[in-house]
Amino acid sequence: MKFGFFGGANSKRGGDNADTSDYNRVIDIVTEADRLGYHGIFMVEHHFTGIGQVSATLNMLSYLAARTRNIRLGTAVTVLPWHNPVLVAEQAATVDLLSGGRLDFGVGKGYRDNEFEGFTIPKEEADERYQESLSVILKAFTSDQRFSHHGKYWQFENIIVEPPTVQKPHPPIWIAAGSDDSIRAVAKSGHNVMFDQFANIARTKERLDIWKEACAECGRQYDPMQVTVARGIFITRTQQEYETALKTRKEGLAKFVSNFGNLPGQEGKSPKPESYSDAIFEDESGALIGDPARIIQQINVLKDIGFEYIIMTMPQKVETVRIFAEEIMPRVQSLAIAAE
Amino acid sequence: MKFGFFGGANSKRGGDNADTSDYNRVIDIVTEADRLGYHGIFMVEHHFTGIGQVSATLNMLSYLAARTRNIRLGTAVTVLPWHNPVLVAEQAATVDLLSGGRLDFGVGKGYRDNEFEGFTIPKEEADERYQESLSVILKAFTSDQRFSHHGKYWQFENIIVEPPTVQKPHPPIWIAAGSDDSIRAVAKSGHNVMFDQFANIARTKERLDIWKEACAECGRQYDPMQVTVARGIFITRTQQEYETALKTRKEGLAKFVSNFGNLPGQEGKSPKPESYSDAIFEDESGALIGDPARIIQQINVLKDIGFEYIIMTMPQKVETVRIFAEEIMPRVQSLAIAAE
Repeated sequence: MKFGFFGGANSKRGGDNADTSDYNRVIDIVTEADRLGYHGIFMVEHHFTGIGQVSATLNMLSYLAARTRNIRLGTAVTVLPWHNPVLVAEQAATVDLLSGGRLDFGVGKGYRDNEFEGFTIPKEEADERYQESLSVILKAFTSDQRFSHHGKYWQFENIIVEPPTVQKPHPPIWIAAGSDDSIRAVAKSGHNVMFDQFANIARTKERLDIWKEACAECGRQYDPMQVTVARGIFITRTQQEYETALKTRKEGLAKFVSNFGNLPGQEGKSPKPESYSDAIFEDESGALIGDPARIIQQINVLKDIGFEYIIMTMPQKVETVRIFAEEIMPRVQSLAIAAE
Repeated sequence: MKFGFFGGANSKRGGDNADTSDYNRVIDIVTEADRLGYHGIFMVEHHFTGIGQVSATLNMLSYLAARTRNIRLGTAVTVLPWHNPVLVAEQAATVDLLSGGRLDFGVGKGYRDNEFEGFTIPKEEADERYQESLSVILKAFTSDQRFSHHGKYWQFENIIVEPPTVQKPHPPIWIAAGSDDSIRAVAKSGHNVMFDQFANIARTKERLDIWKEACAECGRQYDPMQVTVARGIFITRTQQEYETALKTRKEGLAKFVSNFGNLPGQEGKSPKPESYSDAIFEDESGALIGDPARIIQQINVLKDIGFEYIIMTMPQKVETVRIFAEEIMPRVQSLAIAAE
């Protein structure tokens, strides 16, 4: 069983001095996770948030490449419609080169209305732009020969995209998928899949079953390391802490839906926002929540379903990275070894 | 007197394994330069070169931000017509944040035909695109409030660009200028200026005189740290090494003109390529070349002219960074102190 983290840093504008404390928190989390043997991290990318969410994610990963040795460094996700596909391929290849082949390149279409508005890109073009960009990026990663591209949104003439990636044929592409159809489409594409931190355990199992079935259908061997599932992590010591954690999670989910109209990976798919009930937000089976013994049980449920790689929300405190590594990881690992 | 380096790394495509050796050379040079008290480095950005020149320069600088403590980290130059101005502002701000305010942001219009062709951007649009981009970038760096931009090439709606820069109001903008008019324009803009490694000492002096005069005319105080001059560096120990170095430099200049039709910063200005003679390529007064004693003399000529910051071509060997720091820097410094 492998573990990692996903999340991002914040640095809000305003005032005479830039506030780097939260960037430093995330740098500390990632360097500590690297030291303690976690498998990878995925970092968000957002623009124009007003709360300073990390925007230049591949730059942050370049920095982290220098501060870490083994941990994989991912984006979750680079929203392709915002980027010139050739420039973003150069940036991603550079992270892969500088990290010695540790880039996990998560890509997406975008879902936040204020980002579409900010970049003045119509949301209706998102899918088409995403598809065109991804095909240019894959060509850029894999072609040692010059090529041209004459697409609907992008034109390039006689280009060779440098530097080369370390991972061949290219860094793994990770795609978030929530609905049955999108899961099948990712399986068919040959890329890796990320499942979200919102779905409860029943739906999460269903998603993995669909993935396995779709892999079988298109002759793709099931590799558990090509799948990751995100989970909120709340290590609590008392009943009161546990109840506070449940409340925090519920409020976080409701706020997300209220801010963005939907949960990512759910666009145009079930469940639709109008069908969200309190029950969805209160269902704790979508998180790792409770004392270490309880969390080990929850991880074992995911393991029994067939997951081998869980990425957890980045904690507020580096201490949580250590507690999880000391009190939870060894016991999950030994259970796994005992069962083999 | 402050010293730095400019240059870039190469990693050519092809083969099963990416060749990271030259990236590692440059990383070693910059970390050693940081340790030895050099002031800054400037790194090139090029695309589609076929020889693997560094393309994602702000990513390389993000990596170097983590590997260094004090040295300033510059681009020379980020060619604005290739970039979405908001994305590149986010990336630059992130480098500034991660480095604790060490970004020197060099910008330019581009000069290589194959890059204009590759990005399918007409060269005639270069100046207009550059001007529009730079104005968006400066607004992005400095505005703590949301703004919109409706330009000829770019549209943004209700955006706030994050993270904030550490340097206020923004990282220094460095602009290469070669002709009288372009030097005056940079002085007037309030930004910093870079003089190239091609002009001989007479023209280099002339350029600084024009700069000082233009600063005076527009009420700008002359600050020698807002000016840098690039120089080739060839530390030689024997007459034979010296003659080889002269030949290498001459061939390098001639090859540059043959490849790109001109020397950068000279576009549309004198001297024009058709007037280039062997004399230009053979004039060693544009380089630091010879044994340490001779190089100290050459540096003192630049110092007498009024320069305080020289950036040298990145050497092939890290050893040169040490030799210069040990045998040349202290003697220049002490001469300077003796003269004060």
